Amino acid sequence: MSAGTVASMVTVDDIRKAQARIRGALLVSPCQHSETFSQISGNRIFLKMENQQMTGAYKERGALNKILELSEEERGRGLIAASAGNHAQAVSHHATKLGLKAQIVMPLATPLNKVMATRRFGGEVILHGANYDEACDEAKRRSKEDGLTFVHAFDDDAVIAGQGTLGLELLSQVPDVDVVIAAIGGGGLISGMACALKEINPRIRVIGVQTSRLPSMKAAIEAGHLVTLPVASTLADGIAVRTAGERTMPMVQKYVDEIVTVEEEEIASAILLLLEREKTVAEGAGAASVAAILHHKINCEGKRVAAVISGGNIDVSILSRIIERGLTKDGRLIRLRIHLPDYSGALHSLTGVLTDHRANIVETAYDRKFGVDLGYSAIDLTMEMRGNEHVARLLKALDKAGYQFERVG
Amino acid sequence: MSAGTVASMVTVDDIRKAQARIRGALLVSPCQHSETFSQISGNRIFLKMENQQMTGAYKERGALNKILELSEEERGRGLIAASAGNHAQAVSHHATKLGLKAQIVMPLATPLNKVMATRRFGGEVILHGANYDEACDEAKRRSKEDGLTFVHAFDDDAVIAGQGTLGLELLSQVPDVDVVIAAIGGGGLISGMACALKEINPRIRVIGVQTSRLPSMKAAIEAGHLVTLPVASTLADGIAVRTAGERTMPMVQKYVDEIVTVEEEEIASAILLLLEREKTVAEGAGAASVAAILHHKINCEGKRVAAVISGGNIDVSILSRIIERGLTKDGRLIRLRIHLPDYSGALHSLTGVLTDHRANIVETAYDRKFGVDLGYSAIDLTMEMRGNEHVARLLKALDKAGYQFERVG
Repeated sequence: MSAGTVASMVTVDDIRKAQARIRGALLVSPCQHSETFSQISGNRIFLKMENQQMTGAYKERGALNKILELSEEERGRGLIAASAGNHAQAVSHHATKLGLKAQIVMPLATPLNKVMATRRFGGEVILHGANYDEACDEAKRRSKEDGLTFVHAFDDDAVIAGQGTLGLELLSQVPDVDVVIAAIGGGGLISGMACALKEINPRIRVIGVQTSRLPSMKAAIEAGHLVTLPVASTLADGIAVRTAGERTMPMVQKYVDEIVTVEEEEIASAILLLLEREKTVAEGAGAASVAAILHHKINCEGKRVAAVISGGNIDVSILSRIIERGLTKDGRLIRLRIHLPDYSGALHSLTGVLTDHRANIVETAYDRKFGVDLGYSAIDLTMEMRGNEHVARLLKALDKAGYQFERVG
Repeated sequence: MSAGTVASMVTVDDIRKAQARIRGALLVSPCQHSETFSQISGNRIFLKMENQQMTGAYKERGALNKILELSEEERGRGLIAASAGNHAQAVSHHATKLGLKAQIVMPLATPLNKVMATRRFGGEVILHGANYDEACDEAKRRSKEDGLTFVHAFDDDAVIAGQGTLGLELLSQVPDVDVVIAAIGGGGLISGMACALKEINPRIRVIGVQTSRLPSMKAAIEAGHLVTLPVASTLADGIAVRTAGERTMPMVQKYVDEIVTVEEEEIASAILLLLEREKTVAEGAGAASVAAILHHKINCEGKRVAAVISGGNIDVSILSRIIERGLTKDGRLIRLRIHLPDYSGALHSLTGVLTDHRANIVETAYDRKFGVDLGYSAIDLTMEMRGNEHVARLLKALDKAGYQFERVG
């Protein structure tokens, strides 16, 4: 098929068939009203909690539909897929449940918890390659050599139709929805979902969200053809796709109204707000839709808006870092470098001021050599505080007491 | 009324009336099957997600029922409550929704996020006292002096009946449940819930969980009368109650089959597992029921077991610490103190070994003075690793290369 020409496309009928096919094997994930995000955005916000799926993400929809569409012969040969994350777990889980063998090629640097999760679901994990592209090449090579059936993560009509079931489900849960927002990686979810939504109700606005670090679908739509972006790292690793799909791009052209981008900081603050207010864990890609709402990238008011929380498989060490950064921003954790005269009792005087202001010291580091005047030493103090007002009062008191200091965190 | 004599008790009829009264104003929280905890425990585990309530905990049930039972005159006088956490938010939220004024007395040291949440829901927060007991005394004093209507956090029949609605709801969601587990603080939840469950189906086993740091209800039941335990700090601050309730204790005696205790480490690991596997945020008290399952405190197999995740209002800085400790336990974060000969290139040789083993350095501290031989310095390295096997390989390599080191985290 020549570039730009697509003989056929997934239809809403394909999606309805997919829904009948996968029904019962997946969770009808809750789609709950969010007071917090409604108040912030001036819309009535619903969150479609796909992070509650068994493997922590929507990917099971497409993977299962694809597997169920395979012939007995194709299934019998065994499956192979490449993924650094959610698609890996989805294929591993549903292949195993159906008694099929599955190999999953994951990049060498894949975090241990994702490797373990994929193994736990029963698939055989092969660690290969420096990144997704190399893992994918290896999967294709093995598929060819060993006759394994390749299950693509997004650029496959059966996968797209499976992801599209999310659109049908959403319509049954929020029938009068005005706007639907979902993150875009390769485009599998948004293609299927937008097709379902628009074919049933063309007045629904469908908005895609990409990380500004890798806006490959946005770039493709603007260029009018697929483009491959340079490697980039992002919190939203689940949508870190350098080249959009051949099958998905025309569907996005046809059905998606707009693609907006979000910054890393915006994704981080969305993850933290989901954690603190909604008591739910979203990964970067899963929080991208909410980041777009939170940071007013979506131009609407008074509408019924559904945002897809597409996945929750975040590495907890990253979560921990996001929390600490959020605390720093809120003035609940600060680090000061304070210059102290080099005599006995100097530190004791300082801690007196800190105690008076109820600053809770959690870490210290002492330096007598660099960046400080002779006769002085510097101490780095990390402290738990009660917010920016509390911080301001403490800084004022330190200033009044004659201390020289810099805020370093 | 003399000690030990209780003229009347909350009945299942009171609880049914409470359910009719509060219906529609609260979320019917999901009660979802958990594959993870089922596999671990050998039972069929359901999680009743009360952390999804608007204020993040089940406390709204009792608070709202109490408020709705008040006379016009009592409401008109304004409400007052004391709480360091969830009851505060519950009273603040529902009083405001009903157009009533509410004062909430919170201890001075209450974390900022809880104070802000309580304010956000509309109540007036008064910071007073070193702990809950002192805040409670202040609330009672103001109640008397200013004629405000006091809303107790647990020791009140209307509150108990309200919490009991959780039992009725659970029965409608898992009709054939065999065992129900919930944390006990003052005993409001377990009293009402156990009454509803046992009066409808006496064969259901009801198990209470307390932190071993403050097992005040367990101690009371064993002693046959209320006892006041010494102040203790615990991750499960939501159930850190030094004296069980006068109204709740007789109900626990009558309806609760067993009270088990859990350790701080057990609560922490339950919080982490809920976060990683269920993608949900539980506070210490909210995770106590699951901690009991996880650490095999509940003696049953092949049963349908429901555990109440009673709340999700955990301070994120505590969550971040729990994550880091969990990572250390899993060999995903380690700290080594490595002794280095004091010459140029020594560190470079060391980092060569670390690089060969893909250890990811995230923090360093250098020491040339203490606890090391002359001519040596010590470096503390914090590294991200891929699990205990990975750690073991690295330690072996360091040993083989002749390094002297200790593991310090």
